[in-house]
Amino acid sequence: MSKIIDLRSDTVTEPTEKMREAMFKATVGDDVYEDDPTIKELEKYAATMVGKEAAIFVPSGTFGNQLAIFTHCKRGDEVILGEDCHIVAHEVGAAAVIAGVQLRALETKRGKMDVSKVTSIIRSEQEDIHFPGTSLICLENAYSNGSVVDLEYMKSIYNIAEKRNLKVHLDGARLFNAATYLQVDAKDIVKYCDSVMFCLSKGLCSPIGSILAGSKEFIEKARKKRKLMGGGLRQGGFLAAAGLISLKEMTGRLSEDHHNARYLASRLEEISGITVDKDNLDINMVFFKIENCNKSSNELCDAFLSKGIKTNPPEAGKMRFVTHYWVNKEDIDYVVNVMKELI
Amino acid sequence: MSKIIDLRSDTVTEPTEKMREAMFKATVGDDVYEDDPTIKELEKYAATMVGKEAAIFVPSGTFGNQLAIFTHCKRGDEVILGEDCHIVAHEVGAAAVIAGVQLRALETKRGKMDVSKVTSIIRSEQEDIHFPGTSLICLENAYSNGSVVDLEYMKSIYNIAEKRNLKVHLDGARLFNAATYLQVDAKDIVKYCDSVMFCLSKGLCSPIGSILAGSKEFIEKARKKRKLMGGGLRQGGFLAAAGLISLKEMTGRLSEDHHNARYLASRLEEISGITVDKDNLDINMVFFKIENCNKSSNELCDAFLSKGIKTNPPEAGKMRFVTHYWVNKEDIDYVVNVMKELI
Amino acid sequence: MSKIIDLRSDTVTEPTEKMREAMFKATVGDDVYEDDPTIKELEKYAATMVGKEAAIFVPSGTFGNQLAIFTHCKRGDEVILGEDCHIVAHEVGAAAVIAGVQLRALETKRGKMDVSKVTSIIRSEQEDIHFPGTSLICLENAYSNGSVVDLEYMKSIYNIAEKRNLKVHLDGARLFNAATYLQVDAKDIVKYCDSVMFCLSKGLCSPIGSILAGSKEFIEKARKKRKLMGGGLRQGGFLAAAGLISLKEMTGRLSEDHHNARYLASRLEEISGITVDKDNLDINMVFFKIENCNKSSNELCDAFLSKGIKTNPPEAGKMRFVTHYWVNKEDIDYVVNVMKELI
Amino acid sequence: MSKIIDLRSDTVTEPTEKMREAMFKATVGDDVYEDDPTIKELEKYAATMVGKEAAIFVPSGTFGNQLAIFTHCKRGDEVILGEDCHIVAHEVGAAAVIAGVQLRALETKRGKMDVSKVTSIIRSEQEDIHFPGTSLICLENAYSNGSVVDLEYMKSIYNIAEKRNLKVHLDGARLFNAATYLQVDAKDIVKYCDSVMFCLSKGLCSPIGSILAGSKEFIEKARKKRKLMGGGLRQGGFLAAAGLISLKEMTGRLSEDHHNARYLASRLEEISGITVDKDNLDINMVFFKIENCNKSSNELCDAFLSKGIKTNPPEAGKMRFVTHYWVNKEDIDYVVNVMKELI
Repeated sequence: MSKIIDLRSDTVTEPTEKMREAMFKATVGDDVYEDDPTIKELEKYAATMVGKEAAIFVPSGTFGNQLAIFTHCKRGDEVILGEDCHIVAHEVGAAAVIAGVQLRALETKRGKMDVSKVTSIIRSEQEDIHFPGTSLICLENAYSNGSVVDLEYMKSIYNIAEKRNLKVHLDGARLFNAATYLQVDAKDIVKYCDSVMFCLSKGLCSPIGSILAGSKEFIEKARKKRKLMGGGLRQGGFLAAAGLISLKEMTGRLSEDHHNARYLASRLEEISGITVDKDNLDINMVFFKIENCNKSSNELCDAFLSKGIKTNPPEAGKMRFVTHYWVNKEDIDYVVNVMKELI
Repeated sequence: MSKIIDLRSDTVTEPTEKMREAMFKATVGDDVYEDDPTIKELEKYAATMVGKEAAIFVPSGTFGNQLAIFTHCKRGDEVILGEDCHIVAHEVGAAAVIAGVQLRALETKRGKMDVSKVTSIIRSEQEDIHFPGTSLICLENAYSNGSVVDLEYMKSIYNIAEKRNLKVHLDGARLFNAATYLQVDAKDIVKYCDSVMFCLSKGLCSPIGSILAGSKEFIEKARKKRKLMGGGLRQGGFLAAAGLISLKEMTGRLSEDHHNARYLASRLEEISGITVDKDNLDINMVFFKIENCNKSSNELCDAFLSKGIKTNPPEAGKMRFVTHYWVNKEDIDYVVNVMKELI
Repeated sequence: MSKIIDLRSDTVTEPTEKMREAMFKATVGDDVYEDDPTIKELEKYAATMVGKEAAIFVPSGTFGNQLAIFTHCKRGDEVILGEDCHIVAHEVGAAAVIAGVQLRALETKRGKMDVSKVTSIIRSEQEDIHFPGTSLICLENAYSNGSVVDLEYMKSIYNIAEKRNLKVHLDGARLFNAATYLQVDAKDIVKYCDSVMFCLSKGLCSPIGSILAGSKEFIEKARKKRKLMGGGLRQGGFLAAAGLISLKEMTGRLSEDHHNARYLASRLEEISGITVDKDNLDINMVFFKIENCNKSSNELCDAFLSKGIKTNPPEAGKMRFVTHYWVNKEDIDYVVNVMKELI
Repeated sequence: MSKIIDLRSDTVTEPTEKMREAMFKATVGDDVYEDDPTIKELEKYAATMVGKEAAIFVPSGTFGNQLAIFTHCKRGDEVILGEDCHIVAHEVGAAAVIAGVQLRALETKRGKMDVSKVTSIIRSEQEDIHFPGTSLICLENAYSNGSVVDLEYMKSIYNIAEKRNLKVHLDGARLFNAATYLQVDAKDIVKYCDSVMFCLSKGLCSPIGSILAGSKEFIEKARKKRKLMGGGLRQGGFLAAAGLISLKEMTGRLSEDHHNARYLASRLEEISGITVDKDNLDINMVFFKIENCNKSSNELCDAFLSKGIKTNPPEAGKMRFVTHYWVNKEDIDYVVNVMKELI
């Protein structure tokens, strides 16, 4: 079969040849017995890389976010977060089921909540018999809408949280894309949160897995709750072997995906009828509208597929193309040419 | 003890002499066995009064709202409602604990959410593996901030809900205040919801209890879940006897409380430094700010108390005075005079 | 209407004339503001009467038991209790919903679990990553099956719990029946638990309400969680006025109901085909089997009803007749005569 | 490093060389998009192998069991199961958290509950306002205690469940060990349940993963709930490649592990002071007691470890040695010799 160009998401990235080899040779053990040396190495490496005391491997980003909320919060607590963040929008309502918390989802602009609004809605159980207590603020960086949130914003949220004795969890599914865009070390972002989840899959190409990092005490509690949630794996070292390459070798190349995204954006803008959302062009995602298209969403996807290109149908009127390790400049040129033919 | 004027809330209303007599003489039975004739009479009367098939007595407004959510929704479902409504603001996060739902709390203006925003965030489980399903919209009328929501708004929300196969629950803790303001029958409000909770206490003076009304099938399910929540009472007829007087005789006099509230507002405006919130002066509540007051919140409350007036400290900079059955025009004049002395 | 003799349960007891009068004259206030003097008096009196630091009024026995579990336990904890106790058998699975705990329901003999079995299944979260922690043992006295549990048993359970750092909650819905049977003060029973729920209704004739008592800290936490569960009442003093009479005047007369139960038992045994369960004849309940009865359960209940006697159909082959304030010796003789006619 | 003999569990099994190769070469895709051909192949193969319509890959046995309960049951339902089964004993109380169900855990003998007891405690919501409904019975085969449950028992439970309209879930973590012992096809066991979970790890040597199988409709619902629980994996095909070998090639060799277990048992019995539990010697586990041992549990484990043998400390006075792919007859002879030296 000839090459497929998959623009649906960076979650589609297959591991590199080097990862496959590392997996083939991985030294493994039973991680429920805390006996897997490669998992241990990965957890230690990951914690150090983001400047936290400890880290734990989890099977998915959703798992890591939900485990964080479950570990930080008492049931019935309030959690403040952006209304279009992944936890609210794409985790099947899990926070109400697993942690059993009440979400206070606020409007956002380019991934940012209004800081004074956040401040004003924090409340304490002790204040009033009618109030739940706020115990957590969730941030996301890079944000699902393709934008990166600045450090000033994160710092101001973190300061408020500290003052009011809340915790901050960062959904950093694409943490290293954010660091790449901001031209800072991941640590410089993560210092403004108490816990962070980041994915080894997505742009970093691991087949499976994410990391949850935080204080030693937090990770110890999370380990028990990971078991409850069915995330205690056995010979996880295979996944960790790929994960180590993700962290050591793949984080450095994300700027390439970002360049490709911007190249794709500029090429798409050549086409009349297409408007790219330049406000949300910080990482490896290009959002755009197609006007006067004579094809339905499904027809468009099908037409692309017949040309070897996988795309998602538009959401709320916008298409999203995602660049990654397996999409190069020639692929982009090919995609743009197909697009020109189709609309 | 000389008379106390209690302006904190209409929840403080003691029952009338007639209610005490009705309670004294009440015919009762064991309501868990569905054997209490007075409870039955109340439930039937209440259902008819608001134009629903059936109704059930519950110990409090919070109990009724939470029971409604628990009965309408599957765990993990999404519920759309205003961010400052009672369910979000003053029910201790119960919806995350008892029903286990995910709240989507939207900004409001004078008690109303943006209808197009509501429309845009409704989603279906079938649509996408990442989505919870929206199953309920909660309205509130009169709104806790003292305003009454118009029927056009309620109708447009109800129509959207019907189209998308959702249910609408109305927190009508002060339903009859809303009906009084709108000069309509309670039925004309309630026809825009699938279930409604309204309080027999508050302005209607019953000591304890609220009603949840809806379809026969809904109330049957709610009866079982009321038992689970510990709300199966025994000789409830005592409370129902008062409740029948609330519905038959007290709903008609609420306009008096509204007039008194407006009178209080106009008198307070005489005082320099006081600004009344006239946008939220629809029912029996007066919200106002005091500028340049040389007393702290607690000092002010204490000063009032020493003059026989009970007040709550300001919330978010605003004081709230509430009129009710036990506050008459002379009381208001007395309060205004004390206020003049104090600031 | 001529007199109905209601043998279904002691929950059917209407309040006495004196209670109605006390309710008529009750001084009340808004108990959510902790402003109701009669509720306060009741809570203080109740706490003192059972030897605990503090107490709180709740709308039902189920509410009180579930509130206790919700307050003592973290979600996911294990709770050890008898498999036929009220919490397991008759509370609609609420412990899995509200507190979210895992029940370890053990076999019982005359209301008692095997103490060595209890000891052997207690476990600690720290012990093993696969284990939930046991945090509570629930006892019940008098037991729903009509027997009273001895103090030695309660003491041994309490000692184990203390040693293993667990709490003990006592479902004392009929606590004063147990005290009457054991000829001890309620305090002598309650000293073997950390919290106790007892009903003011049932044999003590209040129309509505139960008490949850425990340490000051425990009751403070429970007050908040009572609000979450919808149990924050307003002018609760009406119920408290009856409750005070229940505690002051009705606890002393329970021996009468017990004598009547034993009298009823002895009279029933006169009838051939009836076997009374003498092992469970400690309080005001008589369990018995009818052999060779030519009527179905429903026919029997209907036949009794036509003679002015309310009965429940048999459960698991046994009928239960319950004596209480509104059943006297002549009623019993009448019941026995009707029974003789019917079978 | 010289060879370690790991007798703690069959969960410690590393994959075979062939599995590593299959993983190296696996064709993968994004399984959240249902795009991974190897996962699809595995799920289809697994379903067919156990005679169910459909199957889904899950990250662990605990995940699969909890997903099954979450999918079969409404919150608050009752689930009947053995008190020492894995779900009760070793899943951290997850059923109370994730599915929110009430467990009715019964005593067992050799892994079997008393069938008439099971029958007697099933109840329906409709029956009584106080009752939760029973919706699921969980069986386990092979049982965690090392015994295999006979098909007659499973059939009788399944028939009861069908009659009362309940579902049966089988925790078949070691399903193929049970089939091997019973000398039947896995299908012959699985036909007595509505859903089954079985592990690809443990004796079948896959590094990670289990299968949940059932009706097409059930698995569709489970797919959504797997996402909620954080079990939506991306390039799962790596694990599926190993899993296919587990099912195709490793199920046939389990008899070898069983023979080795019995050989180990007979050799241990040579040693005075050791008593093997022959009642629970059906699969690859040997339970035994050591009398008059002058070493503490920890000392014993340490002594073994210094000889290259990993063991768990005794639970409830019994040691458990587990045989598997990486333990051969010479290893057993070596272990027995070390044991002789040590005690």
